[in-house]
Amino acid sequence: MKLLFKNIKGLVGAFDAPPGVRSGAEMDQLPVIEHAWLAVEDGIIADFGSMEDWPGISDWRGLEIEDADGKYILPGWVDSHTHLVYAASREQEFEDRIKGLTYQEIAARGGGILNSARKLADASEEELFESALKRADALIRFGTTAFEIKSGYGLTLETELKMLRVVRRLKEVLPVPVRATFLGMHAVPESYKTNPDAYVKHVIEDMLPAVADEGLADYVDAFLEDGYFSAAQTLELLRAATAYGMKGKVHVNQFTATGGVRTCVEAGALSVDHLEELIDDDIAALKGSSTMPVALPSCSFFLGIPYTPARRIIDAGLPLALASDNNPGSTPSGNMNLVVALACIKMKMTPAEAITAATINAAHALEIGSHAGSIHPGAPANMILTEKMPSLAYLPYAFGENHIERVYINGKVYEGA
Amino acid sequence: MKLLFKNIKGLVGAFDAPPGVRSGAEMDQLPVIEHAWLAVEDGIIADFGSMEDWPGISDWRGLEIEDADGKYILPGWVDSHTHLVYAASREQEFEDRIKGLTYQEIAARGGGILNSARKLADASEEELFESALKRADALIRFGTTAFEIKSGYGLTLETELKMLRVVRRLKEVLPVPVRATFLGMHAVPESYKTNPDAYVKHVIEDMLPAVADEGLADYVDAFLEDGYFSAAQTLELLRAATAYGMKGKVHVNQFTATGGVRTCVEAGALSVDHLEELIDDDIAALKGSSTMPVALPSCSFFLGIPYTPARRIIDAGLPLALASDNNPGSTPSGNMNLVVALACIKMKMTPAEAITAATINAAHALEIGSHAGSIHPGAPANMILTEKMPSLAYLPYAFGENHIERVYINGKVYEGA
Repeated sequence: MKLLFKNIKGLVGAFDAPPGVRSGAEMDQLPVIEHAWLAVEDGIIADFGSMEDWPGISDWRGLEIEDADGKYILPGWVDSHTHLVYAASREQEFEDRIKGLTYQEIAARGGGILNSARKLADASEEELFESALKRADALIRFGTTAFEIKSGYGLTLETELKMLRVVRRLKEVLPVPVRATFLGMHAVPESYKTNPDAYVKHVIEDMLPAVADEGLADYVDAFLEDGYFSAAQTLELLRAATAYGMKGKVHVNQFTATGGVRTCVEAGALSVDHLEELIDDDIAALKGSSTMPVALPSCSFFLGIPYTPARRIIDAGLPLALASDNNPGSTPSGNMNLVVALACIKMKMTPAEAITAATINAAHALEIGSHAGSIHPGAPANMILTEKMPSLAYLPYAFGENHIERVYINGKVYEGA
Repeated sequence: MKLLFKNIKGLVGAFDAPPGVRSGAEMDQLPVIEHAWLAVEDGIIADFGSMEDWPGISDWRGLEIEDADGKYILPGWVDSHTHLVYAASREQEFEDRIKGLTYQEIAARGGGILNSARKLADASEEELFESALKRADALIRFGTTAFEIKSGYGLTLETELKMLRVVRRLKEVLPVPVRATFLGMHAVPESYKTNPDAYVKHVIEDMLPAVADEGLADYVDAFLEDGYFSAAQTLELLRAATAYGMKGKVHVNQFTATGGVRTCVEAGALSVDHLEELIDDDIAALKGSSTMPVALPSCSFFLGIPYTPARRIIDAGLPLALASDNNPGSTPSGNMNLVVALACIKMKMTPAEAITAATINAAHALEIGSHAGSIHPGAPANMILTEKMPSLAYLPYAFGENHIERVYINGKVYEGA
């Protein structure tokens, strides 16, 4: 099957070979071919170029032609940080916060991560799979064509494995790349309240080997934060995971910055995520490292906490990736178009920087840059076709509506999982 | 034609008779009938109630039944403040702002309201009509079932009349109520830069009578703000408009609060819109008046200016309406679902308050409360049917996605203008 897009107003993020991580000033230099063509063969990007240099069609057999006049084609979004598997939404806590309750009061009423954990314990694997599949399906329609999905609402061996088995099933049925992250250290469960170190020991000595044994996770994660897990505890996890070939993708600096970023970088973490608070040593630690900083602006938006200082990060010559943080507590949205819009409106990233962060760099935050995050010959044709737009900047500018006309997965119009 | 919705999870904003303005604590007391039925006949709401008290069906002829199990029905949104007619989007200014240019610098580069004015002068009435119709169509799909639309990008007699004739055509073709506002005093045009008073005189003595003569506007508006128009100039306009039976809906307190609200209230304005800045005397002036305060949170979101202090307004016992401010400069979105979400997330309005503000009170800000903004016998069946949702609070909580399954206009599924 051959598919030819012609007269594309702008072909965005197209490269001759898979691009590496884009850092600093390079992030604003997103390639856009104006008035372009793009050929897809058997679901794989075959070739592309400017209409001016179009070789023409020698063989029309089995060829479908799509006129993309006035429209843009972008690589699909890569969402490198989600908590897509959960049992129930938590809008009651949202209402409680509006009414002025503090986090502590909400937690005392049974809210927070432990709320999700209680509900998850009661849900069957089948229920969890069905609801997560429905969410993933809705998000693919919004242009996300690769996901990372974390555990972390289990907090027992059995329930963490249940979550990760759901992610394994999602990997099997979803037509897009899915990466799994074991987040046993998301919160200290009630039963270990008085002895958090014993929980860390349990995670590392019991859960991690079991997860590795079933091959259920690609990465490990911990919530490195005052009142959750310390840098030392996180380091223990990262070191133990290395023995299983699993790198870290760590929640760090959401509310406080106390040097945890350096710990993660030195332990070879693949990414450090959140970074709403950032000290100069965090920047220094990231320089020259292969750890990707990841910002989650929808979380800042929803919680009303500071946005990750993207300009400081990029202007220091570092790369940055964007992800949704989709979860029922702090970020009940996985819409990556809104993530990109927030990055521009609130974090003063240019549209080119934000798109780079949500595609190329996000793919590197999941080690899938060879086949996701950009348009290059040999890559699966996982792409967004926009509606007619006056410019690429229109996408984040007109922030409240959906400008995606179609999403292509492996060269076919996506119509549901 | 008869249409019966049964098993509705929650029927929101249904009253026996058109509700009046909802003020203060009343705003949180939004009626929601759980497990409800709703009957529509020939496009008009006929009756409703709880399934427990359902009278049953005696006459099945021509009856269509819709099972709304798990879903909510709300009155359609009323958007009482838009600039829906314009010639071109302005994402270049958005990029310039990201890159650190000030408003003054952007204006010097040809940006701002005068940018829209230049582009509008060159656009034909037909082009303006077609593009505005397309925007209105997209917004009806997002649940807006009544619009106010302003002029104000013309700033000459001829171009202001052109804009208002476009609004008249929209009134004729759109299947929902549309109200027109003459905003000649939106900015001082270049040609009057050295003599703004002469422009005000021109608006009042030449434009206003011409607008009234053709019956082109229901209301008048002015941008009461430092550097735009003074309270005294606005008062002149409001007094002159009274003679034509046109009330004021005034842009006031967006950047500075200098007593303009009291001026508008005392001149009998129907609404005062923006109010991002608010002094105690504004609250005092509004108390006991029939002037509706209107907040525009999408504008605050996009510009990064303060949100209207909704809690101060509501807790003072006042009513509040919400609108989109949809315009190409400061608010390139007309999605009222996002407006309601922003009101909850950023302005700490409860979901019930925000829905009340975007329906019942918004309808009163357009004097169409008798047939818009609520579900009551005799009203046109202009309604939102949501997807299955766990609760009504889920609507603003899950802020990034579209939870509308269908929009009904005059009892029919909306499928395009």
